Amino acid sequence: MAGSVVLVSGGMDSAVCLGIAAKDSERLVALSFDYGQRHKKELEAASLLASHYKAEHIVLNLPGFSVWKASALTDPCVSVPDFEGVRRGQAPVTYVPARNTVFLSFALSLAEAYDLDAIFIGVNALDYSGYADCRPLFIERFQTLVDVATQRTAEGGMPILLEAPLLRSSKAQIVRLGAELGVPFELTWSCYRGEERPCGACDSCVLRAKGFKDAGLVDPLMVAP
Amino acid sequence: MAGSVVLVSGGMDSAVCLGIAAKDSERLVALSFDYGQRHKKELEAASLLASHYKAEHIVLNLPGFSVWKASALTDPCVSVPDFEGVRRGQAPVTYVPARNTVFLSFALSLAEAYDLDAIFIGVNALDYSGYADCRPLFIERFQTLVDVATQRTAEGGMPILLEAPLLRSSKAQIVRLGAELGVPFELTWSCYRGEERPCGACDSCVLRAKGFKDAGLVDPLMVAP
Repeated sequence: MAGSVVLVSGGMDSAVCLGIAAKDSERLVALSFDYGQRHKKELEAASLLASHYKAEHIVLNLPGFSVWKASALTDPCVSVPDFEGVRRGQAPVTYVPARNTVFLSFALSLAEAYDLDAIFIGVNALDYSGYADCRPLFIERFQTLVDVATQRTAEGGMPILLEAPLLRSSKAQIVRLGAELGVPFELTWSCYRGEERPCGACDSCVLRAKGFKDAGLVDPLMVAP
Repeated sequence: MAGSVVLVSGGMDSAVCLGIAAKDSERLVALSFDYGQRHKKELEAASLLASHYKAEHIVLNLPGFSVWKASALTDPCVSVPDFEGVRRGQAPVTYVPARNTVFLSFALSLAEAYDLDAIFIGVNALDYSGYADCRPLFIERFQTLVDVATQRTAEGGMPILLEAPLLRSSKAQIVRLGAELGVPFELTWSCYRGEERPCGACDSCVLRAKGFKDAGLVDPLMVAP
C-alpha cells in the first residue's frame, strides 16, 4: 500500500489503528484535530504515537464545534458525566454533532492531495451504541460518498478506501490486537477529563478498564507510578 | 421551514441560494470559510450578503487546505489561469480536494447543533463539467450519508435536507432567477483574482459574463463606476 492517513485522537482505538496501518503503508500520515477539547492530553498522546510510528503528524485547528457549542467535550459550561450519568440508548452529552463526518472529510481532502490509498478510522462497536456516526451503516455510506467525491475517481482512478478495522470489535479484542501488534498503550490517553492520571470514572475510562480486564491484561496507564 | 444554513462563498450562485432560502426560513444562518483563499473579497461579499438577508453569519477559519497546499486558490505558488488556460474535461488547477465534502460536513454539524431543517449549497451544472464534488451524483450520495450521520435521525427524527436548487441550472437561468428574487448581485464577488474590479479573464469571470449576456441582463459589477 503506497500510503495511508490515520485519524489519531490519542486514544487506545486510534493507536491500534495506527499500528495496523503502519504494517502496510509506505507513507503514513497521522491526522489529529484541535477542536476545542477541554484538555490537550489527547493531542500530546497523538503526537507521541505519531513519533513512535515515524508518521508525519498534522494537527488541524478546527474552530467550528466550539462556535456552535456542541457538547460537553467542547463547551466549558457542560460537565462531563460519570459512567452512571450517561443515558444509554441516547446520544451521550459528549456527542459532537457530525464530528466523524467532519474528520473524515478532512482526511479525504488530505488523502486526495497526497495521493494516498486509504483512510483509517478507529470507530468500534462499543461506540456504536451511543453515536450515530460510529455505526457500520455510517461507514458504508461514507465510502459510497468517497467513491464519487474526488477528482481522482471522476477521472477513472482508484477510489480511496475507508478502513475501519475495529468497527465490529469489542474493547477486549482491541486490547488483545494492540498487544499482539506491540502498540504502546502507555502513550495513549482515553479519559475525557484531562488530569494528571485517568479519572477512572468517566464513560471512556470505564470502557477502557473493562476492555483490559476482559482481555486479561493490565493497562500500563493504571499501574501505580 | 424552521431554519436553514446556507453555504455562502460570496459568489453569484450562493447569493441566489441565499435568496431562495430566505423566502422560507424563519431562522437563516450563512456559513462561510476562510481557508487560505488568495484574497478576502469573497468573504467581504459574503458578509454583505448575509447582512442584506438579515442572516446570522458564521465565518470559520479552516487551515487544512493550505496545510496540504491543495490548489491555485490556496497555494500562492500556483498562478490562476485565464479561461483559455483551463483544461476542459479535467479538474481545473483551482480544484481544492474534497472542498464541498468538508464544507457540507461543517454545515451538517451546525444544522444538527442548531436543529435546522435544511442545508443549501449553490453548486450548479456549469461547475459540474469541472469538479467531481459539484455533480448531482455527489449531492445524492451526500444526502444518503446525512440520512444516517446525525443523532437526530438515529433517534427517529427528521433527516436534514440537502438543497441544491441550482444543480441543473445554467448560469443564465441563475441570473434570471436571482433577478426575479431581487438578489443584490452588486454585492457579490466571483473573480478568482482579488483586485479592485473583476479581471474579466479568469474562468469564473468568463462564466459569469456569459450568464448575464445569455440572460439579457447587465452585471451591476461590470458597469463603469
